[in-house]
Amino acid sequence: MSYPEDLRKLVDEHLETIRFSHGAGPDGADTTGLDDAMRYSLLAGGKRIRPVLCLATARAIGREPEDFLDAAAALEMVHTYSLVHDDLPAMDDDELRRGKPTSHVKYGEAVAILAGDGLFAEAIGALSAVPAPPERTLEAVSLLSAATGVEGMVGGQYIDVSAQKLDAEGLRHLHSLKTGRLIRASVEVALALGGLDPEGREPYRRFASLVGLLFQIVDDILDVTGSDEELGKPHGSDERHGKVTYVSLYGLEQARSLAAETNDQALAALAGAGGETEDLKRIADYIYSREQ
Amino acid sequence: MSYPEDLRKLVDEHLETIRFSHGAGPDGADTTGLDDAMRYSLLAGGKRIRPVLCLATARAIGREPEDFLDAAAALEMVHTYSLVHDDLPAMDDDELRRGKPTSHVKYGEAVAILAGDGLFAEAIGALSAVPAPPERTLEAVSLLSAATGVEGMVGGQYIDVSAQKLDAEGLRHLHSLKTGRLIRASVEVALALGGLDPEGREPYRRFASLVGLLFQIVDDILDVTGSDEELGKPHGSDERHGKVTYVSLYGLEQARSLAAETNDQALAALAGAGGETEDLKRIADYIYSREQ
Repeated sequence: MSYPEDLRKLVDEHLETIRFSHGAGPDGADTTGLDDAMRYSLLAGGKRIRPVLCLATARAIGREPEDFLDAAAALEMVHTYSLVHDDLPAMDDDELRRGKPTSHVKYGEAVAILAGDGLFAEAIGALSAVPAPPERTLEAVSLLSAATGVEGMVGGQYIDVSAQKLDAEGLRHLHSLKTGRLIRASVEVALALGGLDPEGREPYRRFASLVGLLFQIVDDILDVTGSDEELGKPHGSDERHGKVTYVSLYGLEQARSLAAETNDQALAALAGAGGETEDLKRIADYIYSREQ
Repeated sequence: MSYPEDLRKLVDEHLETIRFSHGAGPDGADTTGLDDAMRYSLLAGGKRIRPVLCLATARAIGREPEDFLDAAAALEMVHTYSLVHDDLPAMDDDELRRGKPTSHVKYGEAVAILAGDGLFAEAIGALSAVPAPPERTLEAVSLLSAATGVEGMVGGQYIDVSAQKLDAEGLRHLHSLKTGRLIRASVEVALALGGLDPEGREPYRRFASLVGLLFQIVDDILDVTGSDEELGKPHGSDERHGKVTYVSLYGLEQARSLAAETNDQALAALAGAGGETEDLKRIADYIYSREQ
């Protein structure tokens, strides 16, 4: 199976068209440099898993992926903002991301903080402009903000940086917030915009939760087994930061079994969904097989 | 005239009730410390100009201020998030805010960054939950995100930290983005939620723009003339950072004339609005007379 490259291409082409700044005014005030920094990180490539999940979900429920591009872009902007802030010296202090200098290395810390802030604001702006019935768009905004807030991505990042003593359940909780919630939101935003009823959504939501978990297990494995080149940053970063991971907790072999099991469960959940789920399966397969 | 303390009390009492975290789980993962940091800054006091503007606008257009409390809280959260990030060492590097240690001094830089991020996400969540017809709530979300983004608050902050060479028009532009947009949005969000038609909104919007301008002129004057105690931080901070201000550009006397003129224009705009605008006048008067 191969990754749905047609959807990734749609996402990349759409992201290329985005401009955040109106450019320099005759008065000398100019936000172009901020726009540069935001697009530097947004256009740094990658598999675009979150927006592609959103478009694949649109397709699964019989909607045109093209109609969900603003929502897909919003998800990638939120993801990018979180990377830019996570890389800051006060946080993970990473100098490379996808093989390129991180935002604060290239633009300085102040601009990197503002680039993250700007991406988040513009993500909400892009999502609130999606042409759908307003109650659906509003639900999508609400899902995305919840996935990003204290009981979502930002809260997960807080637990991660505050070095709490976690057991296996705690680790799962951390990652369900830090990465899981946004991955789940990538599916849920499309379900909301598509107006699917609660029962119809359930198997997709279960799939999305499991894919989020799978993503993190594989990420922890790759941090140990991947080469610097494959990762786009020095490997072993988790161990150096003394972080609890699926590998530090279970060992490599058991972490791999857990990944296989989670992948099976995700596909089983999808089997109950009914729609045209082929692309969603391809995404799960890609996430799973990154570590093979 | 006195500030509408009844509205400020409503805001303060509502903010006191807000909790962002679900607390510690049995698994050890705990976002309570993040909630603490967010509420430390949110509850640090102040005149609550933005949420009070929102509630006063509600009153002016014949709506119950109580119904707009979530929107008012969202505006204060966005304002607080911007202060927390502006104070960071990589930005303005301020150690005191309203007479108390800034977020990064008290909680460390990583938590301060995340507290700002969390406040923004929760602001969008609070606003999207306002009980109003969805098309109105969605418009309010859209207004707030635009006021916060690259052509709003974050863009203004970027222009400020990137030390651009600005003339008088450029300075006005910077502040119309950095502080003006959110102050204007405080009025506009209420107009949107109230469902006022575009013509009815116009005088309020003009008032709000002028009040935003007035706020900044007075702020620049106070940075020179205020005592450390009044400001809650060391005065002269603008000059030390080499910032272009209304005072550095026009001198103190002319800056004071400009404030008086702007105040007159704001009141004139309001005279055309028709509604119960007494509280809005009181807010403008408070902002103007801070420097007397």
